[in-house]
Amino acid sequence: MLSKNQAKSLRALHRKKTRRELGLFLVEGEKVIAELLAAADWQLQSLYATAEFITAYKSLIKQAGVVLVECSAEELTSVSTLVSNTAALAVVKTPEQAPVMQFNNNSWVLALDGINDPGNLGSLLRIADWYGIKQVVCSPTTTEVYNPKVIAASKGSFLRVALSYQPLDDFFNQLPANTAILGAYLEGESIHQLEACPSGGVILLGSEAQGISTELATQVTRKITIPTFGAAESLNVGVAAAVICDNLKRLGAG
Amino acid sequence: MLSKNQAKSLRALHRKKTRRELGLFLVEGEKVIAELLAAADWQLQSLYATAEFITAYKSLIKQAGVVLVECSAEELTSVSTLVSNTAALAVVKTPEQAPVMQFNNNSWVLALDGINDPGNLGSLLRIADWYGIKQVVCSPTTTEVYNPKVIAASKGSFLRVALSYQPLDDFFNQLPANTAILGAYLEGESIHQLEACPSGGVILLGSEAQGISTELATQVTRKITIPTFGAAESLNVGVAAAVICDNLKRLGAG
Repeated sequence: MLSKNQAKSLRALHRKKTRRELGLFLVEGEKVIAELLAAADWQLQSLYATAEFITAYKSLIKQAGVVLVECSAEELTSVSTLVSNTAALAVVKTPEQAPVMQFNNNSWVLALDGINDPGNLGSLLRIADWYGIKQVVCSPTTTEVYNPKVIAASKGSFLRVALSYQPLDDFFNQLPANTAILGAYLEGESIHQLEACPSGGVILLGSEAQGISTELATQVTRKITIPTFGAAESLNVGVAAAVICDNLKRLGAG
Repeated sequence: MLSKNQAKSLRALHRKKTRRELGLFLVEGEKVIAELLAAADWQLQSLYATAEFITAYKSLIKQAGVVLVECSAEELTSVSTLVSNTAALAVVKTPEQAPVMQFNNNSWVLALDGINDPGNLGSLLRIADWYGIKQVVCSPTTTEVYNPKVIAASKGSFLRVALSYQPLDDFFNQLPANTAILGAYLEGESIHQLEACPSGGVILLGSEAQGISTELATQVTRKITIPTFGAAESLNVGVAAAVICDNLKRLGAG
């Protein structure tokens, strides 16, 4: 059963301020929590789950050694940010910021400049994960990754993609001099016909409304674009990222 | 100024039942309403807008001959489904269902089987519009296109893409016998290397949770898939559609 105090603490984690102060965030949903329990490098503070969930994932729960509270689906729904019913909810310790990995020219990094929408950030993590991109670097103006909407939209991919926040200017300045920094613009080289496509580097995506900020534009080594065949003015930033990654991976593999 | 009755009628259009009964739907936001006023084939019943909007789009409004109500941004926000402020809101007559165009083998049609999420349907319209796909056919189980969330997510593309609802089985049975029906699956031919890629046909996408229904699977002439390079289990249906369209257009143009 869920006590009033527990319910209050869980609801408090819907707020960014509380997440920051406590260094904790929420993960919601059966499937993603099963993945979380199996992943070695995440510290679970507590797990709230239905009797059915506890039975189904008994050994994983035991192995994780987490504080366990059995509650009803109704109780879980009352403290969840999800609209639909959920069988489990975990309170997880915010990890130390992922260190920027040794950069190498055979893999891609996604750099995000001011992505505001939590759904878009979650979607970008899922896409990075699909295309084997292990690292995402976000400008400090990008929305907070521990927002439950980001976690939900990432469909578990936040567990596999390292994400860090830092001024992108600093990040670009640390890179080897010959690193390809491909900036997504509405006008640029068509990603269908990229001459001498690099096999790794940085893919820079700008905010939904403003695009890539002018201060960063000078760091872009190649402007790329997705060819259009119709009349829509733009694509959603997640959709654009997927199409770009798909072409780069196709060309890189070819 | 907005009367109480007007506010009530506008809020009633947030509900599907009222939209169906009255044959009306809402379009919200400055940019899309400017496009709507310029488009010849949509019947506006009334327009609610701020003084600034009315000044900026004076001639378009006059030309459309629409009933105009000037109101404040606060009044508009109070009846809008949008979170952010909006300068204009239009009540539009639901058009007759778009007749299925003469099918030809040099263009693509998107067929949607049970897409539930309004944001996804709107996103699919925007993607169709980007890739020059002029027709979308939805199963009757697909979410209603006049939901304000669909209209908002389509970013004006609902104005340019013809959408109809019909049992997909019937639609497929009407097609010329040699029509390519490409079904998106997690396993199939890689869209990076489609042998003898057709230059037109149908792209069939299944629901977010269940995929393509088994009754329709027998109609699919080729199973296609998006190659993965990482660990995510799937892509969002809109993202998948964009990547598929991008490859088909690239191969068709080559």
